[in-house]
Amino acid sequence: MPELRKDPIVGRWVIIAKNRADRPQDLSEDALSPPAGEECPFCEGNEAQTPPEIMALREPGTLPDQPGWRVRVVPNKFPALELEGDFNRRDSGMYHTMRGVGAHEVIIESPRHLAGTTELTADELRDVFWIYRDRLLDLKKDSRLVYGMIFKNVGAAAGASLDHAHSQLIVTPIVPISVAEEIAGSQEFFRHRGRCVFCDMIDEELAFEERILVDSPGFVAFCPFAARFPFETWIVPTAHASHYETLSRAQSEELARVVQRVLEKIEAALDRPAYNYIIHTAPFDTFALDHYHWHIEIIPRVTKTAGFEWGTGFYINPVSPEEAATFMRELPAV
Amino acid sequence: MPELRKDPIVGRWVIIAKNRADRPQDLSEDALSPPAGEECPFCEGNEAQTPPEIMALREPGTLPDQPGWRVRVVPNKFPALELEGDFNRRDSGMYHTMRGVGAHEVIIESPRHLAGTTELTADELRDVFWIYRDRLLDLKKDSRLVYGMIFKNVGAAAGASLDHAHSQLIVTPIVPISVAEEIAGSQEFFRHRGRCVFCDMIDEELAFEERILVDSPGFVAFCPFAARFPFETWIVPTAHASHYETLSRAQSEELARVVQRVLEKIEAALDRPAYNYIIHTAPFDTFALDHYHWHIEIIPRVTKTAGFEWGTGFYINPVSPEEAATFMRELPAV
Repeated sequence: MPELRKDPIVGRWVIIAKNRADRPQDLSEDALSPPAGEECPFCEGNEAQTPPEIMALREPGTLPDQPGWRVRVVPNKFPALELEGDFNRRDSGMYHTMRGVGAHEVIIESPRHLAGTTELTADELRDVFWIYRDRLLDLKKDSRLVYGMIFKNVGAAAGASLDHAHSQLIVTPIVPISVAEEIAGSQEFFRHRGRCVFCDMIDEELAFEERILVDSPGFVAFCPFAARFPFETWIVPTAHASHYETLSRAQSEELARVVQRVLEKIEAALDRPAYNYIIHTAPFDTFALDHYHWHIEIIPRVTKTAGFEWGTGFYINPVSPEEAATFMRELPAV
Repeated sequence: MPELRKDPIVGRWVIIAKNRADRPQDLSEDALSPPAGEECPFCEGNEAQTPPEIMALREPGTLPDQPGWRVRVVPNKFPALELEGDFNRRDSGMYHTMRGVGAHEVIIESPRHLAGTTELTADELRDVFWIYRDRLLDLKKDSRLVYGMIFKNVGAAAGASLDHAHSQLIVTPIVPISVAEEIAGSQEFFRHRGRCVFCDMIDEELAFEERILVDSPGFVAFCPFAARFPFETWIVPTAHASHYETLSRAQSEELARVVQRVLEKIEAALDRPAYNYIIHTAPFDTFALDHYHWHIEIIPRVTKTAGFEWGTGFYINPVSPEEAATFMRELPAV
């Protein structure tokens, strides 16, 4: 069973999840594709190679764990957290620890062996964003769990271990520290100005124009003013909402179109880089928050972070967001 | 001139430092060694290839920027921050920005072309730790500057752009966010328990033993309870001190020996991995703090961080610190 441990200085929780390898020093990354001769476990027809599915969008009349699906959700074969059991919170000397209760699911985005989000059809990507919502709504019924992190790793440099298009959901019994800081910061802003910092940011960016990448009625995509990474891009819904799971069907359609346009630009600008996207949303145990605003952060993995960044949270970005957005806006044909 | 920008949500400052490349998408990493046919700019005899030296430990009678040095400090040729000028703090709409005033220095650790910290002689490494102190004492005289980050990147995966042994010092006009959080967290601990959290941790680790790597009279090295990364190791002085620059000559000798023993173990365990070390110390504009304790964090770069970690600050570590420390303690011959 994985273990959650709390750092006594900053209060950051980490998951200590036993290595899959036999020896502690065997840490080589998983290969991006299955070894030669093995089939992709995420392709249609290979359903038996994953744990039994949690849910799927399927053709009428098809059976679970059989072909006929469009999007399929399965438990991660090597979960960082496990659903069974109680927390068993305890102290070990000055340290706090609990059992790694939670969920770790994989959303397989297409039955076809596609690598990129931009290769999905608009309908497939809409279904993916819709399924994220379904999974959050389902998992938040479990009162032990308070936060759902949805993220996607594309490319080995971004941490992906399989290249078939998929994203992941990790649901935890604690609020991750960066999320807690984001919520505290936006609350502070609200206390001073009486407005949501993300709503203000949308107004500011639309007025300034230079950092805007896509301006769609329901979503604005821009390179943030204090971007940590070159070509970092945020996608923010124009209507204030703190929880991703309030997404409407129409919004999921539009979000799919906007995300695809943004990723097409990033892929054209940086020659199909590895990237991550992460959905930032409010904790399960909060009601609609006036001060927080869900959004998606896309981070191309084109520079290596050095010791400086790890040690301090202080990033050096060699490309200004104005430069990145202008470059992407002016790309031909995308 | 580089620019400092503040994220309006969490208050994190980033440096936007103009790309050295002509086009924003040219982000390929520097090669680890100079191109074929070019000499290493950090080797003795090639002093003219760096900016003029700031200081050096030299044989009597030798001249600056000439051979005869043991450790040499030069400005970074591509500085993230620059010393000249004032801050020019200003608002740009809802955003805060200031000019990137600060220092960015390189400490060249040996005149010989050695790649690893473990290849330095004990005297060389002692001189390096002593020079860190000298540079902090010198730069903290500049009242515009409040924080000095000393770090070392070894290996391309850790962000090193040259393989000749060197470390870096970045001095900033703001306290980096992770440092501010560490100080706030340790202050909170002190308020509740009346003790320094790091002092408590030393006692706890020495009593528990399993996570201890090196137990020397003046320094304890251990894998921290809530380690974010496999084989992450901290080195903490046993005598309480908040500021690195209070290091004594005798401490610098002992620190060099402890750091070398720890790195030898890490290199033997992981087959000479890329790694970073970062010195965590108190801001210039504070006096001796009862609640904060300077220390060194060593992070081997053996796993890729995925979107999950970036988005949330929530790390998954596949090797428990007990397992890592036990493995390293039991290595033969090191």
